[in-house]
Amino acid sequence: MNLVYLDNNATTMVANEVFEAMIPYFSKEFGNPSSIYDLAHGANEAVKESREVIADFLGAANPKEIIFTSCGSESANMAIKGVLDVNRNKKHIITTCVEHPCVLNLYKDLEKRGYRVSWIGVDSKGDLDIGGLLEALSDDTAIVSVMMANNETGTIYPVDKIAQAVKMRNPNTKIFVDGVQAAGKIPINLKDTKIDLFGISGHKFHAPKGIGALYVKSGTMLSPLIIGGHQEKGKRAGTENVPYIVGMAAAAKLAKDSLNDELTTVKKLRDKLEKGILANVKNAVLNSKSANRVPNTTNIGFQYVEGELILLHLNDEGICASSGSACTSGSLEPSHVLRAQGVPFTSLHGSIRFSLSRYTTEEQIDYTIAKMPIIIEKLVKISPFQKELKEIFK
Amino acid sequence: MNLVYLDNNATTMVANEVFEAMIPYFSKEFGNPSSIYDLAHGANEAVKESREVIADFLGAANPKEIIFTSCGSESANMAIKGVLDVNRNKKHIITTCVEHPCVLNLYKDLEKRGYRVSWIGVDSKGDLDIGGLLEALSDDTAIVSVMMANNETGTIYPVDKIAQAVKMRNPNTKIFVDGVQAAGKIPINLKDTKIDLFGISGHKFHAPKGIGALYVKSGTMLSPLIIGGHQEKGKRAGTENVPYIVGMAAAAKLAKDSLNDELTTVKKLRDKLEKGILANVKNAVLNSKSANRVPNTTNIGFQYVEGELILLHLNDEGICASSGSACTSGSLEPSHVLRAQGVPFTSLHGSIRFSLSRYTTEEQIDYTIAKMPIIIEKLVKISPFQKELKEIFK
Repeated sequence: MNLVYLDNNATTMVANEVFEAMIPYFSKEFGNPSSIYDLAHGANEAVKESREVIADFLGAANPKEIIFTSCGSESANMAIKGVLDVNRNKKHIITTCVEHPCVLNLYKDLEKRGYRVSWIGVDSKGDLDIGGLLEALSDDTAIVSVMMANNETGTIYPVDKIAQAVKMRNPNTKIFVDGVQAAGKIPINLKDTKIDLFGISGHKFHAPKGIGALYVKSGTMLSPLIIGGHQEKGKRAGTENVPYIVGMAAAAKLAKDSLNDELTTVKKLRDKLEKGILANVKNAVLNSKSANRVPNTTNIGFQYVEGELILLHLNDEGICASSGSACTSGSLEPSHVLRAQGVPFTSLHGSIRFSLSRYTTEEQIDYTIAKMPIIIEKLVKISPFQKELKEIFK
Repeated sequence: MNLVYLDNNATTMVANEVFEAMIPYFSKEFGNPSSIYDLAHGANEAVKESREVIADFLGAANPKEIIFTSCGSESANMAIKGVLDVNRNKKHIITTCVEHPCVLNLYKDLEKRGYRVSWIGVDSKGDLDIGGLLEALSDDTAIVSVMMANNETGTIYPVDKIAQAVKMRNPNTKIFVDGVQAAGKIPINLKDTKIDLFGISGHKFHAPKGIGALYVKSGTMLSPLIIGGHQEKGKRAGTENVPYIVGMAAAAKLAKDSLNDELTTVKKLRDKLEKGILANVKNAVLNSKSANRVPNTTNIGFQYVEGELILLHLNDEGICASSGSACTSGSLEPSHVLRAQGVPFTSLHGSIRFSLSRYTTEEQIDYTIAKMPIIIEKLVKISPFQKELKEIFK
């Protein structure tokens, strides 16, 4: 068995078609898109066409609404800081307890700088307290920021409905949606929503790490994060990363074309994995309990065993999975997402995220289902919670 | 004759060795460096080794002083905004009139936000008014910001001496050096200087567009520009662009190894081009007049003819050159650098930058020297300044 990569929410393999699409722009069509000679035209055209592809991928009304950035974190920082800078009289922010660290830590920083942040919680299934969110709205609310899909559990939040409800009460409050874990997994059609800003990251859908985009609905004012040259209509300075822009567009095309596979094949394999583990491992409990989920993700807790140990044993069997976000790994704190959901400590520390892609095979899923009970059995034996485990395995 | 690319200060071709070095990190060693399984170790190690290579390239005392960014503009924005944010009581900045637009426009923005900016000029040769710079220093000066080499004329500014003189008077003032046009062209040894922050951009030395670095001397406090995950020790969030980081390190190694060629072969060809044009074209005048210049750049004004027309005719002959920075092309304003130097309007609008690389051949230089008089002769004929031109060509 080759590598079984079930950590596609952390990062993905660059698709072969994406790599092939990028090649000409490294050493052949290498001109600076801003230059006036023929060599630069190819690069310039490629950026223009890629912008149209990404606009189509996100269902934007106009390619001008797409700004290329270097990553999802930059998109989020640009959106949030940019909106706050042009609304300096408003000092209130509404967001959720389950955002990705790149958004969460930015709001924590803003709290220290005098902003008031309302943190909206989730229920035990992972679904958002939308009533609480709307109640928190005030005239002072500059931005409402909700992710479209959660990276750890896969829960989908109804960002379209939230945007509509927020705008009905507060037309001037801006809506930022972190779409990093949704893009390529579920349909997105921004022109039919009230969402003002939407960030994506290429490496979550088989483009390389180091490229992202920010959708900015026409008419939305925001200050640039990176000031300098005239690139991206003055909204983001820096010579355009032509190969990766072309690569992300190629990846977006592939993702759009295979969206049906995500909702059928990938979902079927994810469900098989989930059911297989829950059926074969007695101390396994499902953390991804929402009815609304992206098709590739499951999060399962294993009571009274240590998550890091599970990951190391999986690694020994050639299986890649994770506990929480890669952006927080290294820290020993349990997942803020699962804690917000009220997952009890008994399974919190032993929770594992499996995230599939369209390259995942049934053979790999069968292999993982077969290996999990063996790994957990080993770890159950060395757990300090023998009494509790005996109760479960009786 | 194939393409004659003499616009290496705008961007460079990705070197073959750089491309080869990146390949494994797209679809094979594609793990997220923050993940804990074996797949991620290769990516993690590659980033670590690349940091050591870049530290060596810049003569940093410690690889920890290197932060990877997405471009030179990001490096500049991060350095400048980051320093100002931790020195909020200081409201004075000193910089030069000849900085790159990414730095210039940032300071213009800060001026609108209540900062006082002292703009230091250059003399007719392009050399900096260092006396004026030191006189402008005050207890309120947060940052002194001088580029190491000018992108348009190639003039080298004595940033090491400036840093020393500034620190002698104001030990707490931070020194930011935009090193984008110096890296790969002249030796850099930051550990022996008082420079606190130094930015570079990979695509100026044969790495791809979309990767840069910021040197931050140990002990220098600055707030991050992109807040989020723990990457780059919390100083720059976002999943690491592993392929480009590896690519920039490969490019840095090549550049370091060929630094002697820059100072000999490239310089010889640049001098040949410059002398050839000045000898064969009667209305040509040298704008790059400083004794201190990077070896690859020359800037020549052609009196009473239009620069954009020269570029279009050069393009027809397969020669790529530029007027001013690629980041300002499209605007019809004449170069702020040449204006600061007092270049008269007669040659200001007809000024062309030629920038070579180690891939430039003697044949290409001979070809360009042969084509220039023919192109200029054509344009002289259609110039509205016939009387003045008759005087020159008599």
